[in-house]
Amino acid sequence: MAVTGPTAVPGFSAAATTAGIKPSGKPDMALVVNNGPEFAAAAVFTRNRVFAAPVAVSRTAVADGQLKAVLYNSGNANACNGVPGVEDATASVEHAARNLGMDVSDVAVCSTGLIGERLPMDKVHAGIDALSGAVSDDVDAGIAAAEAILTTDTYKKTTLVQADGFAVGGMGKGVGMMAPSLATMLVCLTTDAKATPEALHAALNAASDVTFNTLDIDGSTSTNDTVIIMANGASGVTPSQEELNAAVLQACAELADLMQADAEGVTKRVTVTVTGTSTNEQAVAAARTVARDNLFKCAMFGSDPNWGRVLAAVGMADADMDADNISVAFNGHTVCERTTGTPHAREVDLSGPDIDVTIDLGTGGEGTGFVRTTDLSHSYVEINSAYST
Amino acid sequence: MAVTGPTAVPGFSAAATTAGIKPSGKPDMALVVNNGPEFAAAAVFTRNRVFAAPVAVSRTAVADGQLKAVLYNSGNANACNGVPGVEDATASVEHAARNLGMDVSDVAVCSTGLIGERLPMDKVHAGIDALSGAVSDDVDAGIAAAEAILTTDTYKKTTLVQADGFAVGGMGKGVGMMAPSLATMLVCLTTDAKATPEALHAALNAASDVTFNTLDIDGSTSTNDTVIIMANGASGVTPSQEELNAAVLQACAELADLMQADAEGVTKRVTVTVTGTSTNEQAVAAARTVARDNLFKCAMFGSDPNWGRVLAAVGMADADMDADNISVAFNGHTVCERTTGTPHAREVDLSGPDIDVTIDLGTGGEGTGFVRTTDLSHSYVEINSAYST
Repeated sequence: MAVTGPTAVPGFSAAATTAGIKPSGKPDMALVVNNGPEFAAAAVFTRNRVFAAPVAVSRTAVADGQLKAVLYNSGNANACNGVPGVEDATASVEHAARNLGMDVSDVAVCSTGLIGERLPMDKVHAGIDALSGAVSDDVDAGIAAAEAILTTDTYKKTTLVQADGFAVGGMGKGVGMMAPSLATMLVCLTTDAKATPEALHAALNAASDVTFNTLDIDGSTSTNDTVIIMANGASGVTPSQEELNAAVLQACAELADLMQADAEGVTKRVTVTVTGTSTNEQAVAAARTVARDNLFKCAMFGSDPNWGRVLAAVGMADADMDADNISVAFNGHTVCERTTGTPHAREVDLSGPDIDVTIDLGTGGEGTGFVRTTDLSHSYVEINSAYST
Repeated sequence: MAVTGPTAVPGFSAAATTAGIKPSGKPDMALVVNNGPEFAAAAVFTRNRVFAAPVAVSRTAVADGQLKAVLYNSGNANACNGVPGVEDATASVEHAARNLGMDVSDVAVCSTGLIGERLPMDKVHAGIDALSGAVSDDVDAGIAAAEAILTTDTYKKTTLVQADGFAVGGMGKGVGMMAPSLATMLVCLTTDAKATPEALHAALNAASDVTFNTLDIDGSTSTNDTVIIMANGASGVTPSQEELNAAVLQACAELADLMQADAEGVTKRVTVTVTGTSTNEQAVAAARTVARDNLFKCAMFGSDPNWGRVLAAVGMADADMDADNISVAFNGHTVCERTTGTPHAREVDLSGPDIDVTIDLGTGGEGTGFVRTTDLSHSYVEINSAYST
């Protein structure tokens, strides 16, 4: 197995434990600790206006650009629990900070799981004690942490990018910034680069825009999505912004790839690319409209080169288009030109697991963008109709 | 069986035939004729910028506020066929007009079925000849027409509203203005009221806004959606705008109810109502965001009172809200207050076929609105992943 994960980077430790939050008895709490010497940090959070208590607490913690540790639990989102939920998240952070000898404002917290259930705080406190006593800089400790944050994920998601004199490692779970509420996207990136919080934030924002934010599995957006990066400067290397951006981008891209492939009920990985509109923003909006269309997604599940559904979907997009001059290609085969089907369009073979859909909106404009999604399968319905009950 | 349908109104005739457009060998062409003495008409069409050839042709035909007949075919949408598609639609109208002794501009045409296939014009022309020779003002002729326009519908949809001195009848198929491309919504309303095209248009627009436009089965919008009303004045009665509005509204509401109940793969009829935001438009937008959320729809399929998914979805809506003061009720049982679950919220019984979801966004604003949708079931995936191939 490749050496990857949050503790594959020098100067980071981690731990995982089974606190009993998940009914399944699987690992459900984790801790990632930055051992310094520097503690720069940045984060991006869900844009949902209904956000969970840990998002509120972590947003405050990272506001000063410094974090020394992030506490994780799976099996319970601690969302929509009102003031008591915020008190629980705060108590968790206070307990961890006390154990680790840190300030409360140096600890962030991320939760994922069912909305609207109070955290079992006795189990959480015991879990924090177990984690605090077990932190290790061994690579396996980071891998164990990556496992403890999973919910409906079917495998662990870790990464390690070796750059020029520094590294970026990390772990993730879930499906994307626009992802199911029970598959909240949580990501923890670690780097031994010397970097300011501002540089980290710039790198994380740029990378998220073209990785996590291009994932749109089902149009839903979690209350808990959180991506955190911590930098300890242990390498002594201060990369240029471009070098930092590139390494963070690669780490995010690897985790996003793993998330797309492990999305709930996925049988196809689908990339929708739009060109020929006025702006990149319009192109992404049009790609998103298609990627979210259930009829299109069902056709992908059925390996059906039903380009008519692509046109029907994109015609509702908020993007400049020449409605009589739209082209569509599936896996490089042009199936529609000037908004009309090509001969043999329905014979294109989409039976493989990866489908590329390219749509040119025909205005001659320079706008381009893409969104990655999945098919809509029986498994998706099954997983999501039988979760909380 | 109740006497309903387009020819249950005096002065209208209809016919249906099996032209062989559908591979199934079921009836697939219909004609509805207004026998006068007046020929006022109005229509509303899909807002999709990729619209089918018959929409283009019919939009032109009804522009002068006059129609004498509407030609229908099912099994082929005549969409995305370029200039040849428009030529086919025009040829169909010309053929029907010639047979019926009408001007070309007095005949509209509506198609529904697969996108991107040329109409088999030899069969269409033979079908028009059969229809022209068979038009009858018998109630059964209208019922037969209602059957011939169906695609994935499982039953005929007809209505008759008896108002003060006049009647509004009609037929429909499909699921709603925001409906699957293979379940295009087509509606033909007939009335013996004396009414101007402007009065008809006002009544149809007002009724559509609160009936067809409140149906949102899967967020998809057809290239072919068309609602037409024809008025022949045969009753001699000129209703007030309010009387006309009320009768048209009732006819549209009855057809919309039938469409919602027959949506593809439906096991639940779900109404999402939003209150407590600034404007009615914001309320509808918020209701639509929830109604389109696949996680919410899967929970409804599973009879799961998962209010957390309602909050996660509505938090992304473009509507004013107090994110800490959102309330949710399922079938009248409050399951969430101040964005927090109530005791026993998860015990609410949603096993019946109808589910009402009411969301108060907590601003104290007067805005209110609703959207009707369905659950997301295995049948939906099955029907829509195995259509064209």
